[in-house]
Amino acid sequence: MRIALLGFGNVGRALARLLASQRPAFPFQIAGIHTARHGTALDPDGLPAEPAFGPAAASAGEFLDRAGAEVLVEITPLDPVSGEPAVSHIRAAFARRMHVVTANKGPIAHAYASLREEAERAGVLFRFESTCMDGAPVYNLIRSTLPGVRILGFTGVLNSTTKVVIEAMREGRSMQEGIGEARRLGITEADAAYDIDGWDSAAKTAALANVLLDARVTPQQVRTQGIGRLTPERVMDLAAKRKTVRLVSRARRGADGTRLRVRAEVLDETDILASVQGTSNLLLLHTDLMGTIGTVSISPGVAQTAYGVFADLVEIWRR
Amino acid sequence: MRIALLGFGNVGRALARLLASQRPAFPFQIAGIHTARHGTALDPDGLPAEPAFGPAAASAGEFLDRAGAEVLVEITPLDPVSGEPAVSHIRAAFARRMHVVTANKGPIAHAYASLREEAERAGVLFRFESTCMDGAPVYNLIRSTLPGVRILGFTGVLNSTTKVVIEAMREGRSMQEGIGEARRLGITEADAAYDIDGWDSAAKTAALANVLLDARVTPQQVRTQGIGRLTPERVMDLAAKRKTVRLVSRARRGADGTRLRVRAEVLDETDILASVQGTSNLLLLHTDLMGTIGTVSISPGVAQTAYGVFADLVEIWRR
Repeated sequence: MRIALLGFGNVGRALARLLASQRPAFPFQIAGIHTARHGTALDPDGLPAEPAFGPAAASAGEFLDRAGAEVLVEITPLDPVSGEPAVSHIRAAFARRMHVVTANKGPIAHAYASLREEAERAGVLFRFESTCMDGAPVYNLIRSTLPGVRILGFTGVLNSTTKVVIEAMREGRSMQEGIGEARRLGITEADAAYDIDGWDSAAKTAALANVLLDARVTPQQVRTQGIGRLTPERVMDLAAKRKTVRLVSRARRGADGTRLRVRAEVLDETDILASVQGTSNLLLLHTDLMGTIGTVSISPGVAQTAYGVFADLVEIWRR
Repeated sequence: MRIALLGFGNVGRALARLLASQRPAFPFQIAGIHTARHGTALDPDGLPAEPAFGPAAASAGEFLDRAGAEVLVEITPLDPVSGEPAVSHIRAAFARRMHVVTANKGPIAHAYASLREEAERAGVLFRFESTCMDGAPVYNLIRSTLPGVRILGFTGVLNSTTKVVIEAMREGRSMQEGIGEARRLGITEADAAYDIDGWDSAAKTAALANVLLDARVTPQQVRTQGIGRLTPERVMDLAAKRKTVRLVSRARRGADGTRLRVRAEVLDETDILASVQGTSNLLLLHTDLMGTIGTVSISPGVAQTAYGVFADLVEIWRR
């Protein structure tokens, strides 16, 4: 199976290494890579893990035409406000009857319903396991292991930066010091406000709701309140009472549509939502037949995000 | 698809109701039910959810011959020491080229490797999702969503009674009062020592290790130490230090085989292993490609165990 990569940052490099390590059991070749920064690399017989780049193709579409791949892996940097350019890249692939895997939550948060319909019309598959929990099975879990189940809602602790900041505040450090710590860990966006004010969580909440609850919303429609007003004094006061704070995403189906909320919540320290720290994530799914079950991912990194893309590629290949 | 049930306790009744509610999307019929207590009920067109029982068939084998089903669901009461009679029931089904689903951890803890080989020889499927986490996806998760992943070990908090007893002790109540509380919740075996001394956890640990790590062990080979010597004073002392106790199952592949252990461990209250309370379960899987990921099930009951059996039936049906 030949793969075209749009984007080649940390996830792309980790994916290239993973694909090399998993051959020949999984015979996937990277036929082309295109990035705004490095240019374009093409080889129908498969590029090496550290390819040499030539001049950039004129457009993503021209790159896809030349790569001759069956699957696009879309891993360009995210514009959280619009979901672009990922949405246009995915549409360009569908127009060429290519399957698509993305690790980019923007398209799912902004345009999932229409992209799903376009994939169906083109007769191709559209997969995005790594968009939410860094590659831990969520969408594939529901699709493959929960037949007949209806998801009624979810509760998640999905943002890493705020967890690192809150833990820093528990030790008396300032929000800026906490943000610095998160930057050193490589988990904070260029603009930390994107995490602190809850927009990262809102995008993840909208993406999950669009897929799991057919909510057809954008991140802007999630009622969002971040941790911007939290102080070390408040967090230490709460710690003395065996409480802490987490930025919690909540969604529930209701008679009048889906209720979506991101908010800094005060929790008992012993609450499972409080137990996830650092880059660890937790997502609880509320269901009709299986009660509440959850997935937790402990300290995932870029290798796990790449693995989620790989798992999606395997599913496409097996079909 | 026609199903034969061996056993018809709480799980069997919940399964019968679930199957009725999921038709016609999932066209499963219960063609026969056989229990030591109620006798035998047979109807090739499908029994109602509350069937009338006639005289008992002479043996499980005779029942299977008369039921004419494609799948056996084995849910008889467990003998934790031997895994019988479930193991013999499953073999009787394989001998008749029937697929088997069991919610009974005994056969997996005692005889998984040979049962798997017998199923392969008979050309049938053998599934057991509900044996470990009350129906939450564990085995199906790994089989369906983690291609190429090698499980290196696991850490689990899998026994409910001990969690209820420890929580009672935190409030100053005695072990006997805690056991009484667990009995009222309907989660404790007739002999509470089976939970308190760790044998339930050892059976779950052996079952998981047999499937996930090809360990080929029995529960007797798990190094097991229960919570029998724990006192309310000790638990309250620990609580004052923001610590608590959980009966933790741990398994690790090693150069010299698989190391398996069940032990009462002192944990920080904020540890995710400490955060699961009551009947909730948590299992963390340590993997090569996906780091550590986990499944949590919040307060599952008999309906979730029945759902796990149903999910297995759907997988067999789809094949």
